[in-house]
Amino acid sequence: MSPHSKIFEVSKFTPAGPNFLPDQLALEEPIQVVIDGRPLAVLMRTPGEDEFLVLGFLRTEGIISKRSQVLRIDLESRENHALVFLADDHAVDWDQLTRHLFSASSCGLCGKATIEAILQSHPKVSASLSIKASVLLGAPLTMRQKQATFDTTGGLHASAIFDPEGNLIELHEDIGRHNALDKVIGSALASERDLSGMFLLLSGRISFELMQKSLAAGIELVAGISAPSSLAAEFASDSGQTLVGFLRPPTFNVYHGAGRITASL
Amino acid sequence: MSPHSKIFEVSKFTPAGPNFLPDQLALEEPIQVVIDGRPLAVLMRTPGEDEFLVLGFLRTEGIISKRSQVLRIDLESRENHALVFLADDHAVDWDQLTRHLFSASSCGLCGKATIEAILQSHPKVSASLSIKASVLLGAPLTMRQKQATFDTTGGLHASAIFDPEGNLIELHEDIGRHNALDKVIGSALASERDLSGMFLLLSGRISFELMQKSLAAGIELVAGISAPSSLAAEFASDSGQTLVGFLRPPTFNVYHGAGRITASL
Repeated sequence: MSPHSKIFEVSKFTPAGPNFLPDQLALEEPIQVVIDGRPLAVLMRTPGEDEFLVLGFLRTEGIISKRSQVLRIDLESRENHALVFLADDHAVDWDQLTRHLFSASSCGLCGKATIEAILQSHPKVSASLSIKASVLLGAPLTMRQKQATFDTTGGLHASAIFDPEGNLIELHEDIGRHNALDKVIGSALASERDLSGMFLLLSGRISFELMQKSLAAGIELVAGISAPSSLAAEFASDSGQTLVGFLRPPTFNVYHGAGRITASL
Repeated sequence: MSPHSKIFEVSKFTPAGPNFLPDQLALEEPIQVVIDGRPLAVLMRTPGEDEFLVLGFLRTEGIISKRSQVLRIDLESRENHALVFLADDHAVDWDQLTRHLFSASSCGLCGKATIEAILQSHPKVSASLSIKASVLLGAPLTMRQKQATFDTTGGLHASAIFDPEGNLIELHEDIGRHNALDKVIGSALASERDLSGMFLLLSGRISFELMQKSLAAGIELVAGISAPSSLAAEFASDSGQTLVGFLRPPTFNVYHGAGRITASL
């Protein structure tokens, strides 16, 4: 059984009458992130890879920019708590953070109301990446084959990093799509992997906040199986990122930055 | 064209070569909610039905419990702002609200780390509802037929209220599933409709926070087309709500509260 799910008793109604069956549900539990003793946020996440989740969250929220700014993350002392200790020479601007926090929310609240405000805090991405269309088209199947939990619970989002040859470098799943992305970004930060030469594949829809997080990590190309939002497309056009939606072989849509994709199918 | 979407130029990559096409994307824009001059939150939402969204958000965040506690919502004076003026005899506890806000987030942050803390602020639901299994099984098709935007953008979540006979009373769509639910709840509040005798159908997955919002509105039965999370199932078992998942004719799963469903298919 997957460590990301839990068995529940379920009454399954069928035309032949009800059955009582065990059913696996995706785990959802809160984790409180505490920085140097001060509570920062509570994330509703699927437990597992919590260190990556916290590192990625701190990175995409602009609290840290490299691994060495975190001295230690203690996940053991209190259940469902991540006690973060920052390096002595790295300070947090709590006033700024309090405003910032609302943008941390996974899909509801955003303290930075404009795209311009986001772009001010992150440089535009470079334009060094070149990906073959055939590589993009092969990525969804590769991702699905690695997704251990989705098929049993139907409840997890996946976020995956691929290299330009289409090799899957990293995949994480979570009940929250933003958490899955933070885990991928946190994992890269932990191993000091540069994501600017890679591309990102998201299992679902692409919102503004996912674009924002991917930009914070320097990702040049974001692809998703489903639709982007209008603001995600506008964001890509401002940030210079390539945005691919409806990546469903044999076709896909490019909303911005088609120049990074070489047409050979 | 739907008022919930916007046309973008897209390069569609196909085996026959790229095409340049117009594509409709679901609208996503921020709206800042300001209460008596003080900024409360920014929601990333699909514009439209903003008054319902704001009323529902205030209701499910525990800021108001009835329509008359809001004097006026001004949506005209500033673009993408909702200026809320509360009734003179209704005060807001801002200290409590600041903590509370993190739970407002649509899928990431939760200030109330435990189910118990949520249940303390909302009474359990009553158990007066009785729904035929056949009525539940008919609801997804009814909802799909009313969903005007989904088929063109692939990007909107729907939330719908049905009466016990299976009549669709209200449906709202939004890029955020929490917003779609807040719009339905806000609309009910505006028309003083009691939702305790109705049931709720969600187009996607059922998270803890959707259960929390539905409980705040007194909804006894929550059904979804997709999977609930583990915490959603545990929440239902504590709140006394009926939780139906994978509502896909001819079957569905009941995770708690099967007693409200009469087995006749």
